[in-house]
Amino acid sequence: MQRAAALVRRGCCPRTPGPWGRRQSSAAAEASAVLKVRPERSRRERILTLESMNPQVKAVEYAVRGPIVLKAGEIELELQRGIKKPFTEVIRANIGDAQAMGQQPITFLRQVMALCTYPNLLDSPSFPEDAKKRARRILQACGGNSLGSYSASQGVNCIREDVAAYITRRDGGVPADPDNIYLTTGASDGISTILKILVSGGGKSRTGVMIPIPQYPLYSAVISELDAVQVNYYLDEENCWALNVNELRRAVQEAKDHCDPKVLCIINPGNPTGQVQSRKCIEDVIHFAWEEKLFLLADEVYQDNVYSPDCRFHSFKKVLYEMGPEYSSNVELASFHSTSKGYMGECGYRGGYMEVINLHPEIKGQLVKLLSVRLCPPVSGQAAMDIVVNPPVPGEESFELFHREKESVLGNLAKKAKLTEDLFNQVPGIHCNPLQGAMYAFPRIFIPSKAVEAAQAHKMAPDMFYCMKLLEETGICVVPGSGFGQREGTYHFRMTILPPVEKLKTVLQKVKDFHIKFLEKYA
Amino acid sequence: MQRAAALVRRGCCPRTPGPWGRRQSSAAAEASAVLKVRPERSRRERILTLESMNPQVKAVEYAVRGPIVLKAGEIELELQRGIKKPFTEVIRANIGDAQAMGQQPITFLRQVMALCTYPNLLDSPSFPEDAKKRARRILQACGGNSLGSYSASQGVNCIREDVAAYITRRDGGVPADPDNIYLTTGASDGISTILKILVSGGGKSRTGVMIPIPQYPLYSAVISELDAVQVNYYLDEENCWALNVNELRRAVQEAKDHCDPKVLCIINPGNPTGQVQSRKCIEDVIHFAWEEKLFLLADEVYQDNVYSPDCRFHSFKKVLYEMGPEYSSNVELASFHSTSKGYMGECGYRGGYMEVINLHPEIKGQLVKLLSVRLCPPVSGQAAMDIVVNPPVPGEESFELFHREKESVLGNLAKKAKLTEDLFNQVPGIHCNPLQGAMYAFPRIFIPSKAVEAAQAHKMAPDMFYCMKLLEETGICVVPGSGFGQREGTYHFRMTILPPVEKLKTVLQKVKDFHIKFLEKYA
Repeated sequence: MQRAAALVRRGCCPRTPGPWGRRQSSAAAEASAVLKVRPERSRRERILTLESMNPQVKAVEYAVRGPIVLKAGEIELELQRGIKKPFTEVIRANIGDAQAMGQQPITFLRQVMALCTYPNLLDSPSFPEDAKKRARRILQACGGNSLGSYSASQGVNCIREDVAAYITRRDGGVPADPDNIYLTTGASDGISTILKILVSGGGKSRTGVMIPIPQYPLYSAVISELDAVQVNYYLDEENCWALNVNELRRAVQEAKDHCDPKVLCIINPGNPTGQVQSRKCIEDVIHFAWEEKLFLLADEVYQDNVYSPDCRFHSFKKVLYEMGPEYSSNVELASFHSTSKGYMGECGYRGGYMEVINLHPEIKGQLVKLLSVRLCPPVSGQAAMDIVVNPPVPGEESFELFHREKESVLGNLAKKAKLTEDLFNQVPGIHCNPLQGAMYAFPRIFIPSKAVEAAQAHKMAPDMFYCMKLLEETGICVVPGSGFGQREGTYHFRMTILPPVEKLKTVLQKVKDFHIKFLEKYA
Repeated sequence: MQRAAALVRRGCCPRTPGPWGRRQSSAAAEASAVLKVRPERSRRERILTLESMNPQVKAVEYAVRGPIVLKAGEIELELQRGIKKPFTEVIRANIGDAQAMGQQPITFLRQVMALCTYPNLLDSPSFPEDAKKRARRILQACGGNSLGSYSASQGVNCIREDVAAYITRRDGGVPADPDNIYLTTGASDGISTILKILVSGGGKSRTGVMIPIPQYPLYSAVISELDAVQVNYYLDEENCWALNVNELRRAVQEAKDHCDPKVLCIINPGNPTGQVQSRKCIEDVIHFAWEEKLFLLADEVYQDNVYSPDCRFHSFKKVLYEMGPEYSSNVELASFHSTSKGYMGECGYRGGYMEVINLHPEIKGQLVKLLSVRLCPPVSGQAAMDIVVNPPVPGEESFELFHREKESVLGNLAKKAKLTEDLFNQVPGIHCNPLQGAMYAFPRIFIPSKAVEAAQAHKMAPDMFYCMKLLEETGICVVPGSGFGQREGTYHFRMTILPPVEKLKTVLQKVKDFHIKFLEKYA
């Protein structure tokens, strides 16, 4: 028993298939064998098991960090141990994590954050005055003038004011009220919090939540956790992943048979699909939500990431107000933004905000109450959000550098979006819609029937099989389309366009070569 | 309608009683009247209302930031507007927020954080080498060497290693495995995550979660959110708030009639009650959990906050291992720690960790999956946690200053704990147990029957009425005992001992004067 216990301690505990159906590693199998040989007489039944656990949590799936990412981690460890592979490094193109891919932080943002963290630096001549001004303003609004105090549950007041001012500027003067701004722990926190309040009912009156397919799997995960009903509407791949209101109508009508559709989630610019919605489309969606009495969630975390010259970001809030008072005083809307995407890519700080429109005052009280249970979002993330919405302006000392850094990131992303589309479309059996925005390609891939059979033999979805092979043969980690949802019989993967240009070119070339070999092998 | 809309925008929207039963302010009543005179013809029924919302969220209560804190905020605004009060400032003794009360951050911790935030500072001669060494180590373990990248969902590897090493040292060599460490967004996040996985079943097989009364209201809030059953066990006020295992037996037996008791939550040192459990008591609790097949949650966030010379902190993990393999290989335990308390008081960074013992390997996979939906805890909070578990050691450049700062905070807290106990016990009608640990006093207060009647007339719990009066007359904000739970007919409040010594003396004197006046008034 002691040896088994020691194995367990070293992390070699007997591995049964994981939550994503991972296969046993040989080390784990060995540990398993040891346990069989020396049964632990005193080991009792565990209280918390797959059978006894919360079934809604068990049902959660989250592909972006799923089995493919675990496999990538294993391969990295093997490489570190000197095991030879056909490649020298794993390229994690599975997640929109810009700085992990080498993108440098925006200098001004980090200067302000450092000043807030260690206020002694406010006396240092090596920090610019505009950064010091921002830091002083943030600190003055913090308890004890410190990032180390809790903030109000809704977020630091002056940061909420800055967010409101940013939204007003962004939306050409449509007013925003700091009282309607809630700072959050990344956008994910805001989305799951508002969904938590919205979901109710059992049986046929369970809350239906409409989400795009393909979707960002936070939505399906939270819907599962909350035991709500996922109502799929399909984006139109033939039409650059556009949202078609007729498809919304179909989806809501069918859903009404078995649930109470109450929420409509929109991701614009799209993740994983990269489309940017036209103003007309947004108007149609708002009208539909008004007609069908749906609460709108607008996930707008990629609002700064628009690359196609024909596309522009329109916020749901702005369009809502432009549609007149019948809409602007009735449609309930929550929209989300984050420090993680855009040109700053500050994922690790977990900063974000949510703006709510037409929320019932009683519900606003409920929201603050619910948020207060977790005390407050990280204050450092709130400070990061402040710099995102309140960056240097022309005339300020740091403006030029800030502007150059921002334009460099966004310019590169635009270049990489075009490059990726062009290269994928040169590969037989791959079709890729234009990457109008966000930071992902979601190409459609042809998987020959022999490969589909091979996948079935491995009890894997065909695109999971494809992505696993891609990872094992090239070290490139992408996420199978099945993790986001896709029309039956179609296959995709999501790949970020975040690696630096030259590296991205190599990655794309490797995917191309792999794909051609894959087609040949399973022809 | 436009005027009404403008009022709504300015935050003067018509207020119905809030989630904590707040009364209408006169401005709100006025806005209400306006709305009645000019009905908004185009205003439709809202989708999200108190009636349609998630009933489990509606049922949540969270006193630490409840109506008393909202009232404190209103009073602060009034003071700012120049409205005269019998006091000049609000003293927020409602929440354990050390730095908001003037406690200075630990220099070394902030130096490392600043270096991690803005790595250009690594070249600065004004930072000590040991801080730079820590910062380099953390950054090397981060994607792209940046706090701005996502970490693994379980937390940065080297930080988990440092946590494990810390636990091993703390527990006199009992080994800790980094694989069992999960970094979290404060301790609250860890506690609610593990409870989320644990809760299942409906009807009589709903999960019962045993919590102390008085408790920290995170527990009751999460139990409500998850629709689990709260099973109260009462701490023994006559015996310095000790935990008595016979009371656990009573509680679990009674609970079995209507639910499936599966979890036992312990807070040690106690919040709000400040007791420090003896080693014997912990052994008894572990044996009871083993006997009754209960999953143990040990909330040990105050492990550095022990003041009574007769008391010592014993971790559940250590006692579990010392009880032998029958226990150490069977009892499932999760224990929690945080950057927010102790001597560092870094609440705003939302750093924390959870250590799990005997968790089924399948459940560990489920846990990582669930955590991955929120991507990762704030990386800056993880870095703060690293400094807490890996502080300067003798011989290092920063040790002396660090040691002095730490001892100063803890020494002052010990002094204030004694001061508070002594002063409260001089007041007729107040009885206060020794503050053995944590950072709160939870004195019992006598409320005369006339005051109880007055409270009932205001539809308030008697201790809420008392605390509201205290706030209105002295500016001191404390939390009524009813927010934590207490034996029927007894009344308490929770007050932090965080104000600086001289200020705390004034606060205590004011409470004393108020109490005597209160007794006279309602005699």
